[in-house]
Amino acid sequence: MTPSSPMNASSRTCLAVVLAAGEGTRMKSKTPKVMHAIANRSMLGHVLAAVAAAGADRIAVVVGPDRDDVAKEARRHFADPEIFIQKDRLGTGHAVLSARDALARQPDDVIVVYADTPLVSIETLARLREPLSRGAAVVSLGFEAKDPTGYGRLILSGNELMDIREHKDASEEERAIRLCNGGLMALRGDVALSLLDRIDNKNAKGEYYLTDAVAIARTLGHKAEAIVVSEEEVHGVNDRAQLAQAEAMIQGRLRQRAMIDGATLVAPETVFLSYDTKLGRDVVVEPHVVFGPGVVVEDGVVIHSFSHLEGATIASHSGIGPFARLRPGAAVGAGAKIGNFVEIKNTQLGAGAKVSHLTYLGDASVGAEVNIGAGAITCNYDGFNKHRTEIGDGAFIGSNSSLVAPVRIGAGAFVGSGSVITEDIPEDALALARGRQVTKEEWARNFRLKSKASKSK
Amino acid sequence: MTPSSPMNASSRTCLAVVLAAGEGTRMKSKTPKVMHAIANRSMLGHVLAAVAAAGADRIAVVVGPDRDDVAKEARRHFADPEIFIQKDRLGTGHAVLSARDALARQPDDVIVVYADTPLVSIETLARLREPLSRGAAVVSLGFEAKDPTGYGRLILSGNELMDIREHKDASEEERAIRLCNGGLMALRGDVALSLLDRIDNKNAKGEYYLTDAVAIARTLGHKAEAIVVSEEEVHGVNDRAQLAQAEAMIQGRLRQRAMIDGATLVAPETVFLSYDTKLGRDVVVEPHVVFGPGVVVEDGVVIHSFSHLEGATIASHSGIGPFARLRPGAAVGAGAKIGNFVEIKNTQLGAGAKVSHLTYLGDASVGAEVNIGAGAITCNYDGFNKHRTEIGDGAFIGSNSSLVAPVRIGAGAFVGSGSVITEDIPEDALALARGRQVTKEEWARNFRLKSKASKSK
Amino acid sequence: MTPSSPMNASSRTCLAVVLAAGEGTRMKSKTPKVMHAIANRSMLGHVLAAVAAAGADRIAVVVGPDRDDVAKEARRHFADPEIFIQKDRLGTGHAVLSARDALARQPDDVIVVYADTPLVSIETLARLREPLSRGAAVVSLGFEAKDPTGYGRLILSGNELMDIREHKDASEEERAIRLCNGGLMALRGDVALSLLDRIDNKNAKGEYYLTDAVAIARTLGHKAEAIVVSEEEVHGVNDRAQLAQAEAMIQGRLRQRAMIDGATLVAPETVFLSYDTKLGRDVVVEPHVVFGPGVVVEDGVVIHSFSHLEGATIASHSGIGPFARLRPGAAVGAGAKIGNFVEIKNTQLGAGAKVSHLTYLGDASVGAEVNIGAGAITCNYDGFNKHRTEIGDGAFIGSNSSLVAPVRIGAGAFVGSGSVITEDIPEDALALARGRQVTKEEWARNFRLKSKASKSK
Repeated sequence: MTPSSPMNASSRTCLAVVLAAGEGTRMKSKTPKVMHAIANRSMLGHVLAAVAAAGADRIAVVVGPDRDDVAKEARRHFADPEIFIQKDRLGTGHAVLSARDALARQPDDVIVVYADTPLVSIETLARLREPLSRGAAVVSLGFEAKDPTGYGRLILSGNELMDIREHKDASEEERAIRLCNGGLMALRGDVALSLLDRIDNKNAKGEYYLTDAVAIARTLGHKAEAIVVSEEEVHGVNDRAQLAQAEAMIQGRLRQRAMIDGATLVAPETVFLSYDTKLGRDVVVEPHVVFGPGVVVEDGVVIHSFSHLEGATIASHSGIGPFARLRPGAAVGAGAKIGNFVEIKNTQLGAGAKVSHLTYLGDASVGAEVNIGAGAITCNYDGFNKHRTEIGDGAFIGSNSSLVAPVRIGAGAFVGSGSVITEDIPEDALALARGRQVTKEEWARNFRLKSKASKSK
Repeated sequence: MTPSSPMNASSRTCLAVVLAAGEGTRMKSKTPKVMHAIANRSMLGHVLAAVAAAGADRIAVVVGPDRDDVAKEARRHFADPEIFIQKDRLGTGHAVLSARDALARQPDDVIVVYADTPLVSIETLARLREPLSRGAAVVSLGFEAKDPTGYGRLILSGNELMDIREHKDASEEERAIRLCNGGLMALRGDVALSLLDRIDNKNAKGEYYLTDAVAIARTLGHKAEAIVVSEEEVHGVNDRAQLAQAEAMIQGRLRQRAMIDGATLVAPETVFLSYDTKLGRDVVVEPHVVFGPGVVVEDGVVIHSFSHLEGATIASHSGIGPFARLRPGAAVGAGAKIGNFVEIKNTQLGAGAKVSHLTYLGDASVGAEVNIGAGAITCNYDGFNKHRTEIGDGAFIGSNSSLVAPVRIGAGAFVGSGSVITEDIPEDALALARGRQVTKEEWARNFRLKSKASKSK
Repeated sequence: MTPSSPMNASSRTCLAVVLAAGEGTRMKSKTPKVMHAIANRSMLGHVLAAVAAAGADRIAVVVGPDRDDVAKEARRHFADPEIFIQKDRLGTGHAVLSARDALARQPDDVIVVYADTPLVSIETLARLREPLSRGAAVVSLGFEAKDPTGYGRLILSGNELMDIREHKDASEEERAIRLCNGGLMALRGDVALSLLDRIDNKNAKGEYYLTDAVAIARTLGHKAEAIVVSEEEVHGVNDRAQLAQAEAMIQGRLRQRAMIDGATLVAPETVFLSYDTKLGRDVVVEPHVVFGPGVVVEDGVVIHSFSHLEGATIASHSGIGPFARLRPGAAVGAGAKIGNFVEIKNTQLGAGAKVSHLTYLGDASVGAEVNIGAGAITCNYDGFNKHRTEIGDGAFIGSNSSLVAPVRIGAGAFVGSGSVITEDIPEDALALARGRQVTKEEWARNFRLKSKASKSK
């Protein structure tokens, strides 16, 4: 999804106009629609990444008034987007013209995409541009609709796109056409502005429709074409049910890609990947695993069920979970084992280390072949500051012990079970910090009798 | 699903006869079939809630002999149901007549529903009653069957229901009809008993069929009608596979409703809601979350993956999980954070409190902005009684500490890591209760050598 | 799936030739394809179990060169398989002939199966053999393909199989046939070798095709037949997406079987069973539960969400989870309760015992009605050896305590919260091992002021 170099290696310049001003009232959300996420990246982010990967060197983002948050989100995903504000909502043609200054520079290619149509692929965007280089002035994106009712139909003659006919204006014969308008469009940069400026609003809704550019281009003697994609690619998101459908589609792609590349997903439908998850060969992911952003898993790792990973790096042949939570900055060494009910944050674990149960490691560095007992905890926070714990190679941390940071445990040292360690421990030493056992004979029997007696009152 | 006021605001009285006597042998269960749950409410409970919401002011529940458990379950869901016992299983017509005493009171409307057909909606029940108010004597519930084989067919003439023809008695032409009998029926109260009493058992199985009421009504010059619903609404449950299908259908409805109302379910198919789950706007539910009964979630809350909630109230903008378990009586304050491997039971948490990891809080009250360290535990049970823990605003509870209830931690107090707190702590004080650290140099090296030597023997 | 006695009780001897030499390059794996698992058993293991259950008394496994790992896996699933090595990959006919020595013994029946086609049922294999006992020389396995393109077509005349026509050689009329060749074949043992030896490689690919045995048999005056199964049964696995499909199919079967036998799976699509999982009647499995191999659950047990079980035995009417992990050797007594964030390994728990939260029990025996407090841990490992913990009936183990094994807690004894127990405790005694509480007034206030001051610098 995010190749490091553009797919379209042509020398043609390309401006992407990203329409991101939709209000999204059906989302019933305080968050602008295009900032809702799928696979842990905003829809806007997906679209920006796709147009950049398809060769757009400039990006114009059209946002609604007072939407600094959308502009900021755009800047997170593309170095220097131009932000244009669409003050009034007068149709798609009008929205694109909000980016007039960018269009006026006459890039070779212009592509118009929608930030709420996040599933369009890089390959599709590259295909959409392609006819421009052969002289077409306008290229529309079509799809075969399962149910075409309501969509504009693409009227083709051979390769040429003759017109886009709105459903309500279509003849019976035209309505039988299942090739529908997906909305996305490419325009040749030298004519784009002149075509867009000719769009009028003489229609029932009084709006400026981008689709009119096709007929206008033909009237002016230009050629229009269409490319055809699956309906999935033009899936638009207007409410949270459609958002969930988009999530399902992108998850399907990510899972398929992971499996084809050599990872086993035992039950792919229960594994949730992020847009940037990297899984090596012979990685096995058991059912019910969730990947947040920023996870890299090397070859031969087994991720057991009910694990939750984000921002973590996992070296080869280690084992994670079940019930493991790896948080940002967790770096697990080769062959290490992370067991159940274990949380690791901002911590480097050496090769072969074992953290098997009921442990929290935060802000720590743990050497190779260290064994952390059940219930051991790094006390990294004093209410104000975070402190580091350092554990040397081969150390053994007893169960239920508390390591009060800042503290250093020397290589090969032992910490006795249940100890609260507040001072550094030298290499190969033993440290204990716990009370002495006192046994009171018959106490429990008496307590039981007393408690039962008081209960029966 | 459970509006507080009936949908049918008409002044007509309505008796619902709920048939709940089926043995359910294919369930292979010691629990009566109608007490098996979907979305955390028994099937009987779903049906009782639906008929009540559709305006039934009296409910007659027909149960098998010695089924006090079913009667009791009925009383849990409706204030004062009349319980009738069907001694012999002589067919649906006979079952309805078990409620003769209730029928004899001649309510305006009678609706006959099945406790093992739990997906019928309130709207459908209201529609079923509606023709009675216009004079119809009988109204049947029809559905378009994907595969009508085996079902009785509704024979319509315009609006009028002429007959219900059993599959085996149907002509080739009639078998082509896909509109089938869903079983539910409404009868006008003034004629219901006289129609039902005319049903005979002169058929192959020797049973009294409720469906015969249609032909009988017409013979007597009354009008019969039908309403049509989706096949889903008449889904009957006879084995555990069908129970799972019913669960899936009701989950589909609950998830759709939650999304349309403004909650994000990232992967709705992995989220299990209860019949009464309430999710506010801009609530985000990550994949793999389970809601038991009685959960209320306010606006803007994020519920991370692998969380399990029941009987909990969660104030706005707090964060839950991953791997959180909220049990009955958990009340999470606004902006609070509940982290991983945390269980909270019968505990009020103040605004902004943080319980991040590996903690059990039971029978406690926790003030605002309190920080509970990893592994801290309220020791609320002494083997006989539960005791309360009270923690004041802004207190800091160190990791791995044990708070032995009854105990009070003053506002702003600190508890040192690994402490066992048995006495109250004043405001702003520090309490420590742990052993002093002792370090034995070279001990670990010697232990290692000795252990290896003994292993190699 | 694994009946203890063969289904085919006939006295006919049967050799199964299991083709397991495929390289599986599309798996992109270091593990041989047939050793990849579905439902926690290798595909090879599934096929070996099926042929054995269908009455094969001898099994010949054909493996690639240097595949001792596959041979070893075969021996794990069948007592004494004959291993044959296929040196060159010259087609299925050639592969079967690798087992020439076994075929030369002329068993009554020969069945040829594929280790990467793991969904074939015992019933199907028994049906495949059946025509041999009535004199047929060859029996092919056919299936109705959704899309037959590319498959060989079975040309039938009445009951008789006339030929198997490759797609590319098929006439238009033959291509309309949707009955396709599933690959599996049964041959009469007295003629098998003579048929197989007649297969030549005079075709485009220069390979020896097992399917040619049909035409050869007919040429020699023998009878060939076919049986027909669902497409699912002949699902072959060549990449990880197909592996996931096979997993989904087998899970579907296992779930259906569990429900029909009287267990409730609230959301079957989220429950993952092993090939050998045993669930009693009125077991309820909530959403999101994973069963590893070797789990036996008795009647009336409730397994709550997010539980992970392997190698565990759970007695009747106990409750497990949510968030429980039972590992091999966990044996839970009747009516016991295992709560959240609890791991149990190699431990016997008596009837009515309660282990409710945040606990690790390893290498322990726990008596009846014992209560283990939150955060209690058995410290069973000293870095070199595992030691046992024994807890007598009715003991009460306080929260956050550490039991340093080897150690014995007498019946009815109490362990105080937060204690580190290193010495045995007599019956009915109380043991404490923790520091005395010290309170430092105003310390926290001063610390807070100091920390804030240093932060603001």
